[in-house]
Amino acid sequence: MPQLVAVLGRGLVPTEQAVVTADDFGLTRGDGIFDATRVVTDAAGVSIVENLDRHLARLTISAAAVELPVPDVAAISALADEALAAWTTPGEAVLKIVHTRGLEHGTPGATTLLTITDMTPGDRAPIAVATMCRGYASDAFADAPWLLGGAKLLSYAVHTSARREAARRGADDALFVSSDGYALEGPTSSLVWVRDGVVHTTPTGATGILASVTVDLIDEWASTHDVRFERALITIPELYEVTGAWLASSGRGVSPIATLDDKAVPVSAEWTEKLAAAAGF
Amino acid sequence: MPQLVAVLGRGLVPTEQAVVTADDFGLTRGDGIFDATRVVTDAAGVSIVENLDRHLARLTISAAAVELPVPDVAAISALADEALAAWTTPGEAVLKIVHTRGLEHGTPGATTLLTITDMTPGDRAPIAVATMCRGYASDAFADAPWLLGGAKLLSYAVHTSARREAARRGADDALFVSSDGYALEGPTSSLVWVRDGVVHTTPTGATGILASVTVDLIDEWASTHDVRFERALITIPELYEVTGAWLASSGRGVSPIATLDDKAVPVSAEWTEKLAAAAGF
Repeated sequence: MPQLVAVLGRGLVPTEQAVVTADDFGLTRGDGIFDATRVVTDAAGVSIVENLDRHLARLTISAAAVELPVPDVAAISALADEALAAWTTPGEAVLKIVHTRGLEHGTPGATTLLTITDMTPGDRAPIAVATMCRGYASDAFADAPWLLGGAKLLSYAVHTSARREAARRGADDALFVSSDGYALEGPTSSLVWVRDGVVHTTPTGATGILASVTVDLIDEWASTHDVRFERALITIPELYEVTGAWLASSGRGVSPIATLDDKAVPVSAEWTEKLAAAAGF
Repeated sequence: MPQLVAVLGRGLVPTEQAVVTADDFGLTRGDGIFDATRVVTDAAGVSIVENLDRHLARLTISAAAVELPVPDVAAISALADEALAAWTTPGEAVLKIVHTRGLEHGTPGATTLLTITDMTPGDRAPIAVATMCRGYASDAFADAPWLLGGAKLLSYAVHTSARREAARRGADDALFVSSDGYALEGPTSSLVWVRDGVVHTTPTGATGILASVTVDLIDEWASTHDVRFERALITIPELYEVTGAWLASSGRGVSPIATLDDKAVPVSAEWTEKLAAAAGF
């Protein structure tokens, strides 16, 4: 799988070259953050990155939540430009920015790097989703900033584990559910649904749910297209009664949910089309 | 701070040399495990490592919980021997083993490395501890293997965050509490207490608590010294009524808790002495 690596302060480095030491908090404690967005490259090899400013803004918010050094957004943008100029593989890819607390015992200061990795484009085919409890109540993150809710952490082992569990159950992806029975988000995506003509997503804040750039784009589209948009909690039984439900992410766009735990969820081709366009896919 | 780094398959490498690529799951997802134990080096520079076999056994259990490649215990032991022979800084240090899922897009296979890092010895001085909610109920990990309870994960950002929160409150360390009010464990230590002459610790399993090598040593000592040892849940109010309570870890031994949230907890010099000796400190 083609991949390109660039390190802040060093520029492009060979993909197979190690870039992080054994003392880096990002490795030893998952103590760092990331953000990711889509890169589209045309047949001539010219690459553009989508919504980089929004993703860098979210990276900055994540850094504040985890009390990391403030990311140097201008320098990361310049590094991304350098990487994009070198990325000429036609098709779609993911630009990922990693920002760690740096060395535990060495000179203080963040480690910041980015990768661009080839990706099979999302095809909007309806997907099978398996629900699984996230272990937290839907208000677990209220007044508990040490739980780092809403930060896009490198500490993602449970997220990758949930996707393995989904695969084990024959599903394409997972949907986390709170211990009090509310749908939260996917391991690497947000939940969106339409009911009675209103577009919904789950609330950030006390739920610990990550603010989604893709959902923000849908929100903005709705506000200019006379469509109501609301943030609300929803139970799993209620999700079987919607007009349509989707997992949304910056890399793969909006994927309609065909089944939840092997039971059919309504699929709306019309809304899939609208939401994908709203999200820039 | 002196540190030594060794990588499985390569041997010792310079400390400042990067050892992990930007594509390693350990860095990008905190998708890996670790274990750590104490190294003691005499004035002549001869180093011994404590209970390495037990820590490697726990590493193997963590790997199974996270579905990682099985750690090559014999090769890691040999690498540790090589590192210990090279480690001659008199005093105490921590040997840490890191085992990740390896590359996301490259050749499959774990990345395994170890570090030895100089450490200020624990002094058994009573410590101030701040309690904070972990967000999970005390049975959140029952029937939820995807939450990876009991595995010593690289995804440790909340643990380091809890220690920052403790420092912010003027405390030396943190104690996690379940959402239903039970004491669980410290971010890098286990909870031990004595009441009515019985040594207690909190249960693993449904709580998600990590099995502690230090506590196992105390358990074994108890069984040969006519002391009862029990695993039980305890609330914070009950912790103020014990004979003594400690945070225990393989690196720093047993630290008596002097205060919990600025309120005094009984300190027992006699039991501190016994438990420290039982744990090999």
